[in-house]
Amino acid sequence: MESVYAHIDANTQKYIDRLGEAIAIPSISGDASHRSDVFRMGAWLKTELVRLGFSAIEEHLPGKQTLQGHELDLPPVVLATFGEDNNKPTVLVYGHYDVQPALKDDGWKYEPFQMVHEKETGRIYGRGSTDDKAPILSWLWVVEAYKALGKELPVNLKVCFEGMEESGSEGLDDIIFKEADRYFKNVDCVCISDNYWLGTKKPCLTYGLRGVSYFMLEIHGPAKDLHSGVFGGTVHEPMTDLIHIMSKLVSPDGKILIPGIYDDVAPVTEDENKLYQGLDFTLTDIHNATESETTIHESVRDTLMHRWRFPSLSLHGIEGAFYAPGAKTVIPAKVIGKFSIRSVPNQTPERIAEIVKTHVESEFKKLKSRNTLKFEAPQGGKCWVADVNNWNFVAARSAIEKVFKTSPDLTREGGSIPVTLTFQEALNKSVLLLPMGRSDDGAHSTNEKIDLFNYIEGIKLLATYLEEVAAVPK
Amino acid sequence: MESVYAHIDANTQKYIDRLGEAIAIPSISGDASHRSDVFRMGAWLKTELVRLGFSAIEEHLPGKQTLQGHELDLPPVVLATFGEDNNKPTVLVYGHYDVQPALKDDGWKYEPFQMVHEKETGRIYGRGSTDDKAPILSWLWVVEAYKALGKELPVNLKVCFEGMEESGSEGLDDIIFKEADRYFKNVDCVCISDNYWLGTKKPCLTYGLRGVSYFMLEIHGPAKDLHSGVFGGTVHEPMTDLIHIMSKLVSPDGKILIPGIYDDVAPVTEDENKLYQGLDFTLTDIHNATESETTIHESVRDTLMHRWRFPSLSLHGIEGAFYAPGAKTVIPAKVIGKFSIRSVPNQTPERIAEIVKTHVESEFKKLKSRNTLKFEAPQGGKCWVADVNNWNFVAARSAIEKVFKTSPDLTREGGSIPVTLTFQEALNKSVLLLPMGRSDDGAHSTNEKIDLFNYIEGIKLLATYLEEVAAVPK
Repeated sequence: MESVYAHIDANTQKYIDRLGEAIAIPSISGDASHRSDVFRMGAWLKTELVRLGFSAIEEHLPGKQTLQGHELDLPPVVLATFGEDNNKPTVLVYGHYDVQPALKDDGWKYEPFQMVHEKETGRIYGRGSTDDKAPILSWLWVVEAYKALGKELPVNLKVCFEGMEESGSEGLDDIIFKEADRYFKNVDCVCISDNYWLGTKKPCLTYGLRGVSYFMLEIHGPAKDLHSGVFGGTVHEPMTDLIHIMSKLVSPDGKILIPGIYDDVAPVTEDENKLYQGLDFTLTDIHNATESETTIHESVRDTLMHRWRFPSLSLHGIEGAFYAPGAKTVIPAKVIGKFSIRSVPNQTPERIAEIVKTHVESEFKKLKSRNTLKFEAPQGGKCWVADVNNWNFVAARSAIEKVFKTSPDLTREGGSIPVTLTFQEALNKSVLLLPMGRSDDGAHSTNEKIDLFNYIEGIKLLATYLEEVAAVPK
Repeated sequence: MESVYAHIDANTQKYIDRLGEAIAIPSISGDASHRSDVFRMGAWLKTELVRLGFSAIEEHLPGKQTLQGHELDLPPVVLATFGEDNNKPTVLVYGHYDVQPALKDDGWKYEPFQMVHEKETGRIYGRGSTDDKAPILSWLWVVEAYKALGKELPVNLKVCFEGMEESGSEGLDDIIFKEADRYFKNVDCVCISDNYWLGTKKPCLTYGLRGVSYFMLEIHGPAKDLHSGVFGGTVHEPMTDLIHIMSKLVSPDGKILIPGIYDDVAPVTEDENKLYQGLDFTLTDIHNATESETTIHESVRDTLMHRWRFPSLSLHGIEGAFYAPGAKTVIPAKVIGKFSIRSVPNQTPERIAEIVKTHVESEFKKLKSRNTLKFEAPQGGKCWVADVNNWNFVAARSAIEKVFKTSPDLTREGGSIPVTLTFQEALNKSVLLLPMGRSDDGAHSTNEKIDLFNYIEGIKLLATYLEEVAAVPK
């Protein structure tokens, strides 16, 4: 791989400049006035795919959406293929070319859509730098490097780039399921580079995501809001009932109080326990991120296990109650408590919804209230966990060791990346999350950046990963 | 009084027409665009006071306010005197000439600012009809009747009419305290006609009001809102802490859970118990008003005692949490729970604030949370209760018996009418609440009305009350 690495190092400035070109297109999917920029970014990618000799380039239009009062076309899901050799494994890579909104006034030190490469810190600033433009471009630079060197790519590569990730990936799932037996037919494994290192020093591989189930707990009594002077003390108040039920969901130290909720949680195995040794993480990382010292657990292991592999329940708020500043003495007529549960193997959204409903109804009954309870549990998202000993992970681990001269942290994420599960279910092949940026990159925040080190070594990592995929026994 | 009653009956149409004139002035104090109408209504009253021969007419301007982005002059508090005979008692009457907002589109059957006298039902519709234009005009028609009949008024009458009651009576208290030893110097008793009969059939006298203490309970943890996927299960969430504390304030059947809160509540005496017999009230009245059957207590007595003479605690809402429709998986960084306590004799706002603070802090301590609690208790309003055997009440009771041929209900209100307490404290004289309208008049609501019966018999009642004040032994 020495020639490939040397080529990548030699072309560093070119990679920076082209990332700057991509950052300069404000492809904000959540802002109707920038929809044409999202299309422009899709077209920019297609031009690159053509230039690099990708074949079977297809743009799948997912349809229309209504956003901010405008009916808009959804930007294309771009599919392309490099190589169709039946003797090689086929790797599908996913990424997205849309970005979060950003305004200089939000607190950016530079214009968010003008890339700035700060030489003294090695940081490349700009909206989309780390999320997810550097990763998707890097796949292209790998192909370019092999072509420039006259080397054959060790695998067939398929790309799937979407333009709606920051806005719920509208329409993507349908396309993936529809193309599972056609465009994605020969795919052997999937690699997604759209998350981050656990810390700032050590690369990682991600093998798990929590699921999420959302709940709405509505209590209604009177037909309209009441004056608390006139009715306080004489009627069952919906807020009182709701607060009592909500207090029976989770304890202040994070323990979920719903009977049976922990029954399906997979026990911690000895092997799994080992994965928590030597992680690039300290409690200070959370203290810095939250700007507080409000952590519950004393050890890194306990903290990360509660982020990654134990369920949690958060109370988000109440719809229908008084929420503005100041004082108002209303008795709200109808209130809706909102909470969600982050789920883990082997919990299922169906089972969670069932026991939450049973618990909520039983707690409501205890109140002996004359108000009415309505419980809503919209479709929950499943959790995901991969076998870290699968050849896809073995290949990625080996690639990291070769490029970074260190073993990666094996991590999970506490949140969800729904496309991971879609690929898993539609293709039934190993899915791997291979992050490029660091935990402090500020994706979705102000001053988003990617370190030049992560970008350039990242390109090398992706190239090496493809080599290892071809090489490892399957 | 036969000649007075005959005169009043003979002038019914004139009273209706003049109420129509007053209703046609949309004196909405809470809407900056109607401020000139409030002034116009004040001027209309002054013209009447002059025409009727009131003396010492003074307009006190309370100053300025900022409303809806406009700096506005506050409308005048109008003071006037009729008679200055040292041998007669002096009665101070209070009322307000501003009204609540109203739009036909809100669900009115008629234009809210065009009076409609529905002959078949005997109802006079219009914003301000019952709250509080008919009552304040009625005092004037009493003076007019005596003058027309060449009769001497049995008392000296002083009026205090304000134009900001529906918007917090801004500036009024200062004027009352300032004038206590000057304009109001010789006042012997105060009569306020600005509340309602308990039901729809029987007149009443009101001798008590609950006080109100408002509380804000702030919990803060992280410096900014957090993603529940990333941080759920690892940090102390302010919402969880707040919900737990709020659940320790009041039980679903309305019992306040704060230790010591009932210690200062005056015991129910045998005499007081008797006041609850034969009241014009059923549970159906509450069911109709709330359009629900969510009452807590089974008897009228228990229900009204919990409205009038026991404290209640209502949870109003949470500032800082997610309140919009839909689903959002945020962990709010700072949340402020809002609740209030309606207080009764012999509770004091100071003592209530003290024990609420102690309880809240003790419950927070139990949570062993690393978040921070901040407790705010703005100045509370005191409760008020009058001696129903005072001569002012005896006079009013006797007047009701003469006009309506029935004994009045003796009632309290669950809410507060702050000016009552202001007069009580500034003048240290008996204050009486003498309602004119019925419980179903819809003050503050759509289709506000006053029944012609209540208006006309109300004028007779006010005249008779003045006679009785002069007659009763003091």
